[in-house]
Amino acid sequence: MKIAIAQLNPTIGDIFGNSNLILEAAKKAALDGANLLLTPELCLIGYPPRDLLINPSFITATGEQLQQLAQDLPPELAVIVGTAIPNPNAVKQGGKSLFNSAALLLNGKVQQVFHKRLLPTYDVFDEDRYFEPGEKSDYFHIGKLKIGVTICEDLWNNEDFWGKRSYAGEPFSDLAKQGVDLVVNLSASPYSMGKREVRSTMLQHSVIRCGIPIIYANQVGGNDDIIFDGSSFALNRNAELVEVLASFETDFAVLEYDEAKQDLIGNYTSNEAVIQASSLSFSPSEGDAEIWGALVLGVRDYVRKCGFARVVLGLSGGIDSALVAAIASCAIGPENVLGVLMPSPYSSDHSVNDALELAKNLGIAMEMLPIGDLMKTYDRTLADLFVDTTFGIAEENLQSRIRGNLLMAISNKFGHLLLSTGNKSEMAVGYCTLYGDMNGGLAVISDVPKTRVYSLCQWLNAGGIARGENEAEPLDLRYQAEHGNEIIPGNIISKAPSAELKPGQIDQDSLPPYDVLDDILQRLIENHESVKQIVAAGHDEAVVTRIVKLVRQAEFKRRQAPPGLKISDRAFGTGWRMPIAKASFY
Amino acid sequence: MKIAIAQLNPTIGDIFGNSNLILEAAKKAALDGANLLLTPELCLIGYPPRDLLINPSFITATGEQLQQLAQDLPPELAVIVGTAIPNPNAVKQGGKSLFNSAALLLNGKVQQVFHKRLLPTYDVFDEDRYFEPGEKSDYFHIGKLKIGVTICEDLWNNEDFWGKRSYAGEPFSDLAKQGVDLVVNLSASPYSMGKREVRSTMLQHSVIRCGIPIIYANQVGGNDDIIFDGSSFALNRNAELVEVLASFETDFAVLEYDEAKQDLIGNYTSNEAVIQASSLSFSPSEGDAEIWGALVLGVRDYVRKCGFARVVLGLSGGIDSALVAAIASCAIGPENVLGVLMPSPYSSDHSVNDALELAKNLGIAMEMLPIGDLMKTYDRTLADLFVDTTFGIAEENLQSRIRGNLLMAISNKFGHLLLSTGNKSEMAVGYCTLYGDMNGGLAVISDVPKTRVYSLCQWLNAGGIARGENEAEPLDLRYQAEHGNEIIPGNIISKAPSAELKPGQIDQDSLPPYDVLDDILQRLIENHESVKQIVAAGHDEAVVTRIVKLVRQAEFKRRQAPPGLKISDRAFGTGWRMPIAKASFY
Repeated sequence: MKIAIAQLNPTIGDIFGNSNLILEAAKKAALDGANLLLTPELCLIGYPPRDLLINPSFITATGEQLQQLAQDLPPELAVIVGTAIPNPNAVKQGGKSLFNSAALLLNGKVQQVFHKRLLPTYDVFDEDRYFEPGEKSDYFHIGKLKIGVTICEDLWNNEDFWGKRSYAGEPFSDLAKQGVDLVVNLSASPYSMGKREVRSTMLQHSVIRCGIPIIYANQVGGNDDIIFDGSSFALNRNAELVEVLASFETDFAVLEYDEAKQDLIGNYTSNEAVIQASSLSFSPSEGDAEIWGALVLGVRDYVRKCGFARVVLGLSGGIDSALVAAIASCAIGPENVLGVLMPSPYSSDHSVNDALELAKNLGIAMEMLPIGDLMKTYDRTLADLFVDTTFGIAEENLQSRIRGNLLMAISNKFGHLLLSTGNKSEMAVGYCTLYGDMNGGLAVISDVPKTRVYSLCQWLNAGGIARGENEAEPLDLRYQAEHGNEIIPGNIISKAPSAELKPGQIDQDSLPPYDVLDDILQRLIENHESVKQIVAAGHDEAVVTRIVKLVRQAEFKRRQAPPGLKISDRAFGTGWRMPIAKASFY
Repeated sequence: MKIAIAQLNPTIGDIFGNSNLILEAAKKAALDGANLLLTPELCLIGYPPRDLLINPSFITATGEQLQQLAQDLPPELAVIVGTAIPNPNAVKQGGKSLFNSAALLLNGKVQQVFHKRLLPTYDVFDEDRYFEPGEKSDYFHIGKLKIGVTICEDLWNNEDFWGKRSYAGEPFSDLAKQGVDLVVNLSASPYSMGKREVRSTMLQHSVIRCGIPIIYANQVGGNDDIIFDGSSFALNRNAELVEVLASFETDFAVLEYDEAKQDLIGNYTSNEAVIQASSLSFSPSEGDAEIWGALVLGVRDYVRKCGFARVVLGLSGGIDSALVAAIASCAIGPENVLGVLMPSPYSSDHSVNDALELAKNLGIAMEMLPIGDLMKTYDRTLADLFVDTTFGIAEENLQSRIRGNLLMAISNKFGHLLLSTGNKSEMAVGYCTLYGDMNGGLAVISDVPKTRVYSLCQWLNAGGIARGENEAEPLDLRYQAEHGNEIIPGNIISKAPSAELKPGQIDQDSLPPYDVLDDILQRLIENHESVKQIVAAGHDEAVVTRIVKLVRQAEFKRRQAPPGLKISDRAFGTGWRMPIAKASFY
């Protein structure tokens, strides 16, 4: 028996377009002689649909589209489609009005539905807001084969693996007790650093425990701040990877369930499987290739799904804007990227030269708009009001806001999407200007710590060697780097970082070194460590206390930040819900 | 037996400060001879604490503070304190790590804890993100009296009243079966228009059904976007209001449980009770007084809890900024409000004069910063790049962004909080400039439709007559209006609304009349009606379709808006979770 996996990139709410993606994959699967096609979680709608789910007419249209799709599909191919299905007992019994479901379509009809039981409600996930949990796990038959159906989080309650239980129910064990031959999983599992290895290692653990093979079909694509890496895979009864789909791109694969061997047979060689699955230890210096792939996909999809063709960004001559320009060039082509230099009297010559060199290396268009006259005009306009005050944060921010205005004027005039270039370290401590350099439709690297910004640029200059075939390729940039040409000018990487908002200013005047800062921030934000614990790890107490205070005080800025591509386990975005007006507990 | 209600205004995360509020109320209750003191939901922490709850050191500190508070309280007074309590079985059984609890403190110790069973996870509520539901409802004894404990949502599953069930459990009925004499409820129920009447009417319905009196203790105060109105109350066995606490201010009351009559005796006369409880039908033209009270409290608390003393805002001569200036003047005193006029060559003379008159009426300070020179300098800076393009949205937005920059410069220089002045109708259709007039730390009227902006101003000019004793008073403004002086200059109310970004522009050039627009928006946003339904209600299909599209397209602006005070059932804020990159389904 042949089973196909369609690793699709749906657009949120585009039930007609997403339906077509499923239909195309089904035709391919039928041609390949497949008996069953798997699609990702909520594939008809796109994940996460958020409050679209509380629009009754959207739910009605989705139900109609599912019926239509059932009729349009090749009749003898069983297709499992992720969608939302109304809960008929909601009003009577109390409970949410929808299920997060997998519908089995066959012979023109919806034959059976399976409801997700474990609903993630943490970080970026809000599933309890919309969905009622399914009561029990179930399976369907294809021929003699009993196939158990699970949806994403359903497989994430492996108590032995995690050392704790996250939910009362345990769907995988329940299906094992029901004697299924195979478990399939429809997922929309967001990317974060090292997440691919966590998934495969965890599911290998589950397979070894229960002896049942698993096919894991994940969504791919960027949806606002969340990037889905795809990286679907299949494990045979011995927990060997027998199929691995591409990361960061749509993909399709057909694998075989051998009824004699009672096991899955895929196209993936065991040697690669071992490499793929055994790299759970993910050191902070690794992962540039996958982060690059994630960010490129995130930019490409946000630009495309929002209906833009081109982007604009400010080039300061610093490393953050250099990295964002390189990512954008790779994502949508350098011919669609406009860099704008906006030097002030405080800008050093090398900043302008470095930015010009970068633009040349990337092959992007460049405009220069000096801001000195605007600075003077603001000073004149505010002179009476600001008389007898000294140059400070107001004047520093004005420079950043003049630049932000010019960029938005260009965005409005030419219809380019403005990309903001602030990194996570800056966003954490508020070392950024609201309505200035924070301006943009997408914050490309706002979840990338400054130390990682450096390592990504060095990796890029070293040729951007990806770890596997499936990593997104830096396109021309990679060719260029492999032939010995720097992409990010060396001076941009080597010089001391500076906002250049007053003469001679460097970041380290007001912040600890970035390796120290990033370690403190990682402990504070991702590890939830207390000041006491961070100090015990070797940091200076005064520094830690100051950083904690800065993080707290910058909350009002982050609340107004553009969506930022998430690559960590805890990003400042839809999964970060912090009050602004609050007392000192961070 | 005497029972006291402390209607407190906690600050989020300020466990020490909030503890002191409880302690002070307890001393007062003890002096008044009370046996029991009730506080609002999560009162020790402040509601909603959001992701502070996933900080382990915060939870530890909260637990320690609860023990400390138990020791500090007058020993013989029973005090019920709302707090979060760790779920000891979370790791073993799966489940969230906390309960949303009521702790009974007496004789220096935590005697008993009660856990919230019905956890709201919709709109602004995310309780399933943090809390495990309590398994059963329980009671405690004071003397012979059996007092059942519920927390907020626990009382909101009255199936008969709502015509549908929202949760499986029904705590009030369960407590009735256990034979309790009285039910107390700790709440943090946010304000929205008409919500007070909904609460009392619903609980009267419940009391009539079960014949058990209720004391309802609600939080008061603004916490970011959410305003808690207080308005705590008590219903006797016959569902008569026997106690009503103030709206929009802290309050304290002691009532009596008469053991002979087996009923509550309060200080509220029945005549008022009837008026209060029978006004559930809440027409759109009513409610100016309560909305005013809510917005004043929201501004006052946000300014105070964020540590500001003064505010600044742009005065355009239009009605939106006029209303915000009046609200701010009432909230923190006109001496703490700075209005800034920033006329352009497109500003009409009457705009400047109207704004000057408004500033005079309110008694606020005023600065004038003409922006013509800045407009010219931007034009010069962008001349080469914009050559052969025509004046359009880029140039219009630049004016708004110049003003936004000047206001932020003033905010940064003098430490004033910038208030933004956009209304809900504009925010809905995107008739506002990101990084321009949307700039600010707080969006005061971003949940107030334009038609309501007019009615609030007219109400204010008519003397701001509040419906009851407990409405917030417009202070001097009220005195002024009652003595025949206009507060909002008549011309501001009567002239056609205009953004004045090009000569002769008025809002109605590009938008339908505001009464039409607001009705469409209300149906679309709050009532979840489809285009078809809205057209069936009498609106033009082309207009409706265009408005739906505008609402969808403005999502990227709203995502970056400041927190906006919520007064409706569906505001663009923490309870509005809409994807940006999405297909046309709104």
